[in-house]
Amino acid sequence: MNKFGRRFCFSTFGESHGKAIGCLIDGVPAGIKLDMDFIQGELDRRKPGLNKFATARKEGDKVEILSGIFEGYSTGTPIELIIFNKDQKSKDYNNIKEIFRPGHADFTYYEKYGIRDYRGGGRSSARETASRVAAGAVAKLILNELNIEVKSGVCEVGGVTGKDTDFLYAPQSPIFALDKNKDKLWQEMILKAKNSHDSIGGAVHVRVKNPPIGLGEPIYYKLDAILASAMMGINAAKAVEIGDGINAAKTLGSQNNDQISTKGFLSNNSGGILGGISNGENIDIKVYFKPTPSIFMEQKTVDKDGNELSFSLKGRHDPCVAVRGSVVAEAMAALVIVDMLLLNMSSKIENIKKVYAN
Amino acid sequence: MNKFGRRFCFSTFGESHGKAIGCLIDGVPAGIKLDMDFIQGELDRRKPGLNKFATARKEGDKVEILSGIFEGYSTGTPIELIIFNKDQKSKDYNNIKEIFRPGHADFTYYEKYGIRDYRGGGRSSARETASRVAAGAVAKLILNELNIEVKSGVCEVGGVTGKDTDFLYAPQSPIFALDKNKDKLWQEMILKAKNSHDSIGGAVHVRVKNPPIGLGEPIYYKLDAILASAMMGINAAKAVEIGDGINAAKTLGSQNNDQISTKGFLSNNSGGILGGISNGENIDIKVYFKPTPSIFMEQKTVDKDGNELSFSLKGRHDPCVAVRGSVVAEAMAALVIVDMLLLNMSSKIENIKKVYAN
Amino acid sequence: MNKFGRRFCFSTFGESHGKAIGCLIDGVPAGIKLDMDFIQGELDRRKPGLNKFATARKEGDKVEILSGIFEGYSTGTPIELIIFNKDQKSKDYNNIKEIFRPGHADFTYYEKYGIRDYRGGGRSSARETASRVAAGAVAKLILNELNIEVKSGVCEVGGVTGKDTDFLYAPQSPIFALDKNKDKLWQEMILKAKNSHDSIGGAVHVRVKNPPIGLGEPIYYKLDAILASAMMGINAAKAVEIGDGINAAKTLGSQNNDQISTKGFLSNNSGGILGGISNGENIDIKVYFKPTPSIFMEQKTVDKDGNELSFSLKGRHDPCVAVRGSVVAEAMAALVIVDMLLLNMSSKIENIKKVYAN
Amino acid sequence: MNKFGRRFCFSTFGESHGKAIGCLIDGVPAGIKLDMDFIQGELDRRKPGLNKFATARKEGDKVEILSGIFEGYSTGTPIELIIFNKDQKSKDYNNIKEIFRPGHADFTYYEKYGIRDYRGGGRSSARETASRVAAGAVAKLILNELNIEVKSGVCEVGGVTGKDTDFLYAPQSPIFALDKNKDKLWQEMILKAKNSHDSIGGAVHVRVKNPPIGLGEPIYYKLDAILASAMMGINAAKAVEIGDGINAAKTLGSQNNDQISTKGFLSNNSGGILGGISNGENIDIKVYFKPTPSIFMEQKTVDKDGNELSFSLKGRHDPCVAVRGSVVAEAMAALVIVDMLLLNMSSKIENIKKVYAN
Repeated sequence: MNKFGRRFCFSTFGESHGKAIGCLIDGVPAGIKLDMDFIQGELDRRKPGLNKFATARKEGDKVEILSGIFEGYSTGTPIELIIFNKDQKSKDYNNIKEIFRPGHADFTYYEKYGIRDYRGGGRSSARETASRVAAGAVAKLILNELNIEVKSGVCEVGGVTGKDTDFLYAPQSPIFALDKNKDKLWQEMILKAKNSHDSIGGAVHVRVKNPPIGLGEPIYYKLDAILASAMMGINAAKAVEIGDGINAAKTLGSQNNDQISTKGFLSNNSGGILGGISNGENIDIKVYFKPTPSIFMEQKTVDKDGNELSFSLKGRHDPCVAVRGSVVAEAMAALVIVDMLLLNMSSKIENIKKVYAN
Repeated sequence: MNKFGRRFCFSTFGESHGKAIGCLIDGVPAGIKLDMDFIQGELDRRKPGLNKFATARKEGDKVEILSGIFEGYSTGTPIELIIFNKDQKSKDYNNIKEIFRPGHADFTYYEKYGIRDYRGGGRSSARETASRVAAGAVAKLILNELNIEVKSGVCEVGGVTGKDTDFLYAPQSPIFALDKNKDKLWQEMILKAKNSHDSIGGAVHVRVKNPPIGLGEPIYYKLDAILASAMMGINAAKAVEIGDGINAAKTLGSQNNDQISTKGFLSNNSGGILGGISNGENIDIKVYFKPTPSIFMEQKTVDKDGNELSFSLKGRHDPCVAVRGSVVAEAMAALVIVDMLLLNMSSKIENIKKVYAN
Repeated sequence: MNKFGRRFCFSTFGESHGKAIGCLIDGVPAGIKLDMDFIQGELDRRKPGLNKFATARKEGDKVEILSGIFEGYSTGTPIELIIFNKDQKSKDYNNIKEIFRPGHADFTYYEKYGIRDYRGGGRSSARETASRVAAGAVAKLILNELNIEVKSGVCEVGGVTGKDTDFLYAPQSPIFALDKNKDKLWQEMILKAKNSHDSIGGAVHVRVKNPPIGLGEPIYYKLDAILASAMMGINAAKAVEIGDGINAAKTLGSQNNDQISTKGFLSNNSGGILGGISNGENIDIKVYFKPTPSIFMEQKTVDKDGNELSFSLKGRHDPCVAVRGSVVAEAMAALVIVDMLLLNMSSKIENIKKVYAN
Repeated sequence: MNKFGRRFCFSTFGESHGKAIGCLIDGVPAGIKLDMDFIQGELDRRKPGLNKFATARKEGDKVEILSGIFEGYSTGTPIELIIFNKDQKSKDYNNIKEIFRPGHADFTYYEKYGIRDYRGGGRSSARETASRVAAGAVAKLILNELNIEVKSGVCEVGGVTGKDTDFLYAPQSPIFALDKNKDKLWQEMILKAKNSHDSIGGAVHVRVKNPPIGLGEPIYYKLDAILASAMMGINAAKAVEIGDGINAAKTLGSQNNDQISTKGFLSNNSGGILGGISNGENIDIKVYFKPTPSIFMEQKTVDKDGNELSFSLKGRHDPCVAVRGSVVAEAMAALVIVDMLLLNMSSKIENIKKVYAN
């Protein structure tokens, strides 16, 4: 089930070491200027090999558009975006073809499907997320038309939490740090883990700025529920919070409730969502990523035939998936928001008449 | 969008002070003995008015089955379950009909739809969750046939976290406490909040025992992603964790990876899910609930006409929604697992041949 | 899979001899005045026992609304409509509980589900279509707001095709005849079949007047494709035509193409749909119904244990299902059109801006 | 909405004169040998330029597989199939860029989206159907595993109906004629229309042989309803019949009912479907195609600015779309049947236990 979204939706295909990866975006409104430089720019933020904090795999991640465009504008028909794989080193994976790497999906894919493409994790590789970033870039082009922004960055590494949330600073940091004062420390922590042949966990903060009121379709397509699904479905994500999140559960109602004035809400503990519907405040989401399961230390596992063994992994990996994960989380948020924008259009007869009025 | 699930799915209807609430369950396999006592028993666990930790509203929550059953067994056609509302006290809400209660969905529903049923929160009331518990009970009848169990309880109140996770003890506690040693303290904290005209947050732990390997449909219907959506969509939920959750983000890969032996995984930090697919270990989910927004202290808000005002709420409310929320979270988990069980059946041609073999 | 539609959608439940039948309508825009007299009036057109051309079963088909309404208007939350069954005579079916009636779904339901509710055909009974008419009535209330009309009537009985298509006359005819000059003959043909313990086939014509241009979502949710699905899914329907239909296949392009002038299309062979999208002309659909399979003549069949036997059916049945089928087809068309209206709203960025403009 | 199917489903992309067309197939069970020669062979049956009965456009329609395959077998992950366009002659369309061709989707696409790719009809071109044939070929590989066959051919041209239905003969005919005795006449009729700068309508017959009993998901995903949608959604289709279809509406119940013996049904007027579920007999579907709207005779139309004009079309077109349409209809039937096969697996608890038994 490789499709996400209901009205604005996308499907992805492709494996880490296959010929190509890509996505088909369905439900893109006609009349959007499809700025390919912008879309490529979004992919460049996530692409591997950028610096020492990312995997060394070299992929230009050059994206091509195959359909849905005419004279530079979207036509309302499906947009197909494709990225051909270039730097597969499948032989790196020969030594794991018969074994199940701890923390990876090797075991579950093999058991579920009875076959697995072991090369680079196949379909379960985070390489798939490039397609999400491509689709998310198209989503952002739509959000731009309505002056809605989505921003992200890293807010925690290895248990050290940032205090500042500076979305302007993050793009300048090689690890998209949201807290300038923690940036260097976090970098050191990541490199230390990397140099120890280990990996390290982290968390990201995504914010939607200037959302319209009314996004989210209760009861089972609530904005927070779908954001949770979007975020938890990212490789290595293990927890999702909206607004004050886990902390909200530690408070009293009198502390947590956001009181209201004519200028808006007096606080934003809710993270901009009430009853599954956006209330016009910033939408705040946090996603927690486990450390990359690919580590180079010796680990115990079993092979396909059920034999126990110890092994050491080879290959090229991110020491902290939260870093590039922040770009993916941002893309997923943009995709959810656009879907919700389109779905919300028919919430009242008054809106319908606006569209069909002559 | 009031439907949840793809193959085994349910839709709910009804408002807090309407004539009835209920659900239509679609995709129930034929041949399940529909034990109405069991279904009623599940509703009784969640029903209001049980004790001083729940709202004082008296609802028997007597459930009736209107379709999909023949001679006691499911027929494969939709099962309609209905609960007539009995103890609406709509006049309690007269004083809030023009104002937006902080922390509630009043504002967002009104803005989205241009109209709102203010009586008891209308559709946004947690009363809707009775329908989920009813549907969840049917899901559990299916899980029973495959010896899969789903359990839940409260694991944290007001920031005090339990150490024990005793699913056998929880049913004996009036607040479904998972830690016997914290039960009394938690009860006191809840009553203290209640007596102060306040409310308090809390968290619940849900565990799926003995799940088959292979549940979850990557990439966009992963088991963890859909569980996250199911949980975050429960009223007042603000965060969801799978397995070690937020804590996983604070560790190193060498600590977090679950190594594997011939007897299974040597630890279960993953919470039983790898790559979005169950690995056969227990599935562990935690859900964090904000304090009930309904508090009786004076709060600032605005009315429909944009006037600022202060008000004090009346009515009957849960002082800690996490308590009854645990029953709802358990039901949602059961519903997700059954859906995934049915979807997974066609993962490989070998399974298809098993079903269609003559 | 008891749900129809994507954005405006409904799910039905209930069996012929169960406690109740009904539907949950999801995606109804807020702000629609829910005229219960109109809704009941639509059901009255379809209800059994009206005259000698319909089954003698007496059902008032009194519809109740359980949710989604506040002070007479839709609130955007699901609308539950319910009809309690009153005149089940289940004992009429005792003699067929072990056998499969030719032309009915007895055999296929039993084989598929391993169990069947034999009373009145259970879920496969045309009684289910009352729920569609109820949902269709709500759809029509929305269409009224946009001055779109849906009309229907009988255009053929037993191979005798009408020449006139008079949607104003049809409501006056006890068999909804569209051709005043054929009305009496058709009535005689139906009664002759009935008196011979037989049944007779027929066809209906549905027309959507004043549809907006642009309805239909290519490539796999085209207006004609979904209308075809909606119509073919009605009990006893065996063929569907759009516009000139089968006749179009017998012509040359120069005859079939609808040429265009500034006043619109010069003909309407296309039935108002080009490329799966409405072109603003009337939408014309024809549906062909087989004769009711319930006949009282002796027929050969087998029982559950595989024994051959002959039997004669008892009970109360329509001699020509096309008659009441026309009301159902009309309802289904209304439901499709509303769904398409909502889906089409996001076809271009210009429409989105209209809704979200401040 | 460019996706078809629920459990086994595919999405297509691409325009007639874009870079490529293709499809993403989701839900393919793992373990299917993906015979690329077979898939290419299916495309070769539909490809343009084969003979004088098809458009002269030269497309090799060479299909590539980009994902979802490992060592020759399906892995359960999405299969992406792509065909690069080679022989676009976009300048042929310069003269129609401002005008709306009668019988085509030019007008409706332009009105719906506010923009249209006029080159070769853009997305509305029948070129899109190559993707369906590619997806259908994968569906057939699954059907092969269960010994289910899908066959098709032309059964009517220009109002001349065949008497024989010879699925073995059809592949030998350049127009896939099902009646050997009509083959030559039909060819002459097509060429006569072509030489007169006109086009001609026709019909096709699709048969599913050896289907399992139980396919189809009442009430709103019935086998016949979904087949109707699948067929009516093919370019130029205007009518669909199941079994005796329109003729059934002209008969009496005593003639139409298929009586039953221990050897099966004594006739097959139902076309193998009762109550929306397959009964094990052959499934028979007929699809009626209007004449190709692209004709070279002078026609009246309007341009984008609302000016009336006469014009003559240029370009390369099929004189009778039913011919290649038969291959597409066959593919769509295969796709529906596979989807239904997977959906039906969970119809009863007994099947579920077969899959999950240890």
